[in-house]
This record gives sequence, C-alpha cells and structure tokens, in this order.
Amino acid sequence: MSNKSPEEEHPRKAFGWAARDSTGFLSPFNFSRRANGDKDVTFKILYCGICHSDLHFIKNEWGDAKYPLLPGHEIVGTVTEVGHKVKNYKVGDRVGVGCLVGACHDCDDCKNDLENYCPKRILSCNDIYNDMTPTYGGFSDYMVVEERWLVRIPESLPLDSGAPLLCAGITVYSPLRYYGLDRPGLHVGVVGLGGLGHLAVKFAKAFGAKVTVISTSPAKEEEAIGRLGADGFLVSRDPEQMQAAKSTMDGIIDTVSADHPILPLISLLRSHGKLVLVGAPEKPLELPVFPLLLGRKIVGGSAIGGMKETQEMMDFAGEHNITAEVEIIPMDYVNAAMERLAKADVKYRFVVDIGNTLKA
Amino acid sequence: MSNKSPEEEHPRKAFGWAARDSTGFLSPFNFSRRANGDKDVTFKILYCGICHSDLHFIKNEWGDAKYPLLPGHEIVGTVTEVGHKVKNYKVGDRVGVGCLVGACHDCDDCKNDLENYCPKRILSCNDIYNDMTPTYGGFSDYMVVEERWLVRIPESLPLDSGAPLLCAGITVYSPLRYYGLDRPGLHVGVVGLGGLGHLAVKFAKAFGAKVTVISTSPAKEEEAIGRLGADGFLVSRDPEQMQAAKSTMDGIIDTVSADHPILPLISLLRSHGKLVLVGAPEKPLELPVFPLLLGRKIVGGSAIGGMKETQEMMDFAGEHNITAEVEIIPMDYVNAAMERLAKADVKYRFVVDIGNTLKA
Repeated sequence: MSNKSPEEEHPRKAFGWAARDSTGFLSPFNFSRRANGDKDVTFKILYCGICHSDLHFIKNEWGDAKYPLLPGHEIVGTVTEVGHKVKNYKVGDRVGVGCLVGACHDCDDCKNDLENYCPKRILSCNDIYNDMTPTYGGFSDYMVVEERWLVRIPESLPLDSGAPLLCAGITVYSPLRYYGLDRPGLHVGVVGLGGLGHLAVKFAKAFGAKVTVISTSPAKEEEAIGRLGADGFLVSRDPEQMQAAKSTMDGIIDTVSADHPILPLISLLRSHGKLVLVGAPEKPLELPVFPLLLGRKIVGGSAIGGMKETQEMMDFAGEHNITAEVEIIPMDYVNAAMERLAKADVKYRFVVDIGNTLKA
Repeated sequence: MSNKSPEEEHPRKAFGWAARDSTGFLSPFNFSRRANGDKDVTFKILYCGICHSDLHFIKNEWGDAKYPLLPGHEIVGTVTEVGHKVKNYKVGDRVGVGCLVGACHDCDDCKNDLENYCPKRILSCNDIYNDMTPTYGGFSDYMVVEERWLVRIPESLPLDSGAPLLCAGITVYSPLRYYGLDRPGLHVGVVGLGGLGHLAVKFAKAFGAKVTVISTSPAKEEEAIGRLGADGFLVSRDPEQMQAAKSTMDGIIDTVSADHPILPLISLLRSHGKLVLVGAPEKPLELPVFPLLLGRKIVGGSAIGGMKETQEMMDFAGEHNITAEVEIIPMDYVNAAMERLAKADVKYRFVVDIGNTLKA
C-alpha cells in the first residue's frame, strides 16, 4: 500500500463520510480519487443505500476492516465524465455501482460473467484496488470506475428507491434465477422481511410465484401481504402453522443473518426443494442430514451477482416497476440510521440522499 | 396389521433369517409370502447384498424396527413364476429387487419416475405392505413382487457382484446424474471408501471424471488407485494435502455416515461446486454459511433412485462392466458379517450366497 495519506494518493480531491475505527462512527473525511482514465467513467453520486454489510464493515464484525473505511455499495448518480475508450455511457446517463469494481477477467468465473465469484474480485469499499490504494464507497461526492462495473438505471426507475437493487436486489434475484425459482406457479418462501427479504418477495412475485413470507414476528403479516403483495404468511414460531405448510414449497430464500434453526425450513420444502441462504450467520448452522436425503433437498448459498446479471436484474426491475421500500435520510443522520439498522428498525432500506445533503 | 402369525398371513410358506429384537441377532425364521398375483413375479433368490442400513434396521438404530425383521434389499435371482398380466419378464429371467416394493403412483414424484421420494413408498423390508402385512427382505428363499419393482440384470453382469448395485449402486449413480457430476472432465471427490464409496469411484470414472478419494485412512490409497482406478487420493487429516487441493473439485459424493466436519470438504469445491451427502449421520452436521455464499456452493442429499433410473444404472453398469467388489458368504456367517460390517471390516460388500447356503 501507498505511504501517502488518503488525501494525496490520487490527483483529484474527494469528500465523504468514513469510519476511523471499530466504533463504526462515521464522520466527514477528505480523500482523493484517481483521474478519469480512458476506460473510466466519473459520476456524481446522488443516492447511496445502506446495506447490513456496511454495518458489519464499519464495526469490523467480519474482522477485515481497513480504516479509514468509507462504506456504501448501492451507489447511483449521473455521469459527469467519460474516458475516450468508453463505449456505452455518456455525460448525463443515470448509472449505478454495486459491490464490485474489479476482478481478474481471466478465471472461469470471470469468463462466465460471474465476476462476483472471482477469487480476485475487488469490492467497491473496504478493499484494495489494482493500484494498491483503498477502495472508497458511495458515502461520497463522486466516484471513478471502469465502465464495465457500471449498471444503467432504466428511466422508469427512481434513483433513490432504485439504489438498493444494486446489492439487495441482485442478492435475491440471482439465486431465484440460478436455483430455478423463477418460474410461474412455483411456491417460494422468503425468510426475514428486511432489506433483502422485501425485495425477494417482489422479484418472486414478478416471476409468477406464489410467495409466502416466513417470519418470527406476527406483526409483519399485514405489511407482507398488504404492502408487499405476498400471498401468504407463516409465523415460524407457531408449530401448527409450520406443520400445516410442510412439504409445500419449491424453494426458500433465507435472508436471516442471525443464528437460526433451518430444520423447520427444510421441512417446508417439497421433495427436490431448495433452501438458499443469502444471509451470513457467523456461526455454523445445524444441518440435519436425513431430511436432505429423503427429499433430495439442497441447502445452497449465493452472493450478489455478476455484472451481466446485475444489468439484467435492473432491466427486469424497470419493466416490472420493482423498487425498494426506502426511508430517505440526510448524510448527517447516517450514524443514527446505523443504530436503527442494528435493531432492524427500518422499512425496509435506508438510502442516503447524498446529492442534496453531503456538504464538504 | 393382521392378528395372524407371520407363518400364516399368506398362503405360501417361505423361509429366511430374521432378527427378533434389537440385539440384531439373525436366526432361521418361518414365514409366508402372498400368492403370485396377476401382475406379480415370483423369483428364487440366489444372492443378497448386506447394506449398512440392514445393520441399522436389525439393531433398531433408526428407532423404527418391526420385529421379526427379515432384512436384505440387494436381492437377485431368477424368475420362477409370472402372473398373466406380466409383460416384461418370463420364467428364467435374471432379475433383482432393491429397496422398493410399493408407492402411491399418484403423487408428483411417482409421476416423474421418482417413486423413491414418494411419501407412501414401501420398502422391501421392515415396512408394511398394502395388504397390511410386513415386508420381508432378501435373506429368504424367494420373493413375490409386482413386476414394476423388478430390475433386469444384464447378461454381462454376474449376479453375486451385481447384487449391491440395487442399493449401493443406485445410491451413488443417481446423485452423480442429478447433480450434473456425470460429465467427462469434471473432478469428482468421493469421501469414504466402503460399499457406497467404492462404487461411486467406479461410476464417476465411467462417466469420464477425474476421481479423487478422500479418506481418513492413508492405508487405503493403494486400493483406491490400484484396485478401483481412482486418479488421486487425499488424506483428510493431512492439512497440507487438503490445502493443496482447495477449490479443485466440481462435486463430492460423501458416503460417510459417522459425524464428520464438512467445512474441509466444502473448501475442496470450486465455485458452484456440490457436496452431496448420501450417508446419514444421526446428529446434525455443522454447516458453515460463508463458504457456501462466497462460492455459491450447495450441500444436497440423495436417496437411492426411482425404478426407471435404477434400470438405467443397471444397464450402464452392464455396458461398463461395473460390479461391486464383494466377499461372498454363506447364510450362517451373516451374524459374523454384521459384526465385521460394524467395524468396516469388509472389502467392500458382503453378499450372502442365498441360493447355495440357505437351508430350511
């Protein structure tokens, strides 16, 4: 890594909010961004969603925090500059960046448009870029990124409620597709009704599935069905409800990152059903083997998506008017928002209004 | 269930060896079989393999033993009688019966030739048949079964070493197919080199895979490579070997039924790799979630196969000369064989020579 300070690593001054240590407290931060290269696009950031992994990052809960740490990876804005080799974007275009800003482009995953699984993928924040400087995320005034990492935001989608699609959206869209849960007539369960879960409901509905939300909290039933359009609701702590729904689901998207039992979820699956984990509990879960064998069921994982699929997801969202339910907040509310997020006190995603409220 | 004794439930006298209680000790047993119905085939049993689940059954280790319990579900012999509606078999044909003798024929699984996952499937031993009488397995002189549950044994396969294909064979063949591990050039791991594992090596090799055996026991390397044709061997307790093989396998067939860590196995998988459990540990395994997410890996189960696929497997075995490595034993050695099986002291499958050694 460079010996220079973040302010002078690159020629262009930038400004944002960063955490300095594992308190995770975010405060104003001067740094620098690289000059716009031939294949680069610079865009002014207008909105940035807050993902639960931002909270993990800034508090070093995954043990890999690189301070100063400038989070935010659901980043949208408008293009202000393009390099002369940029093919698909022009000044004024509505664009977004999600979790990724780099990969090797040489491994099987990269060759198959699955850069998200490239062992050398570079995250848009809390990572080290090719030039050995830290990557800084979307809680900042602008961003410089190679064209290939950009997603075009369809005109039909608002930028604010569209921003969370870049991480939360693709995180649930990709497994619905990969695990074959994207066909009309299937019965799909969604566990946990937060940032990921509420989008899983919307995408699964748009694919034509019957969607049942599974939650510990009976209070969420009205929201799930009335506001989000789910077809059914199961209280996971109610053994009778769970028993009655046994062997009825083709797949389940489990968004819960707290430790939780998965046997009851496996029991909800029909034969050949798929339980897909997209939340990341720190401790291992208990995996009962007999139920997997006797119903040829699987437990699988999935993590965001490649760039091609992320654009596909965004276009699909545009066609079906899928956006996140958001609470728009000013930049200086971000620490309060992080505290509320830790208590799951948000419906369903905070989005920071960077364009109007980030003041140098 | 009938109030009649096993000897008089049905009109035809039969004889075999059964366990009477959870000691699991097998001893001579008089019982009866049904008359040969219109759609039934009667066949003289010549050989019957011993599967680890027979051991679980007779000792009531799965808690569902129905005594007297006559085990054996890798059953082969020659047809002696056919009902007048039987279409595909005639007297003298070489046939086999595996785990199944009944199902509902009405559920989605039955309609998709997956009778093995039918919730009403009826096992060939330790189960209750449609007429409410117990099912008795292959440690007996003959069997009566509806035609649809028969498998034809290709002429190229010996009956003795072909018998274990009916359970052990299909148990590993079916997941290799279902999970897409049946293509040339893939790298497939096989964990555990017992009755299931040694057949997994043979089938995976026949599909054209590079096969690596993963075992706790370095002593098995020569057998795995020299006798069974595996391409590689990993000692699972050797961290250096395991590290060197990280992210190299497309799939793993895990045949181990003892409690064991699966994180090291998941680490051997490439992105999108599949760990398939076919052994049945009683306690839940520890499932680490991050590695599943970050490589979009899955842990899945599989249990035997449907009749159509079992015949397909048998024909494939016939074409590729795949048989089990067996130790042929007389009927009165069965209790000693069960003791040895409990200690994994067999290479690789006991098969009882019923035709020559079962004496009334």
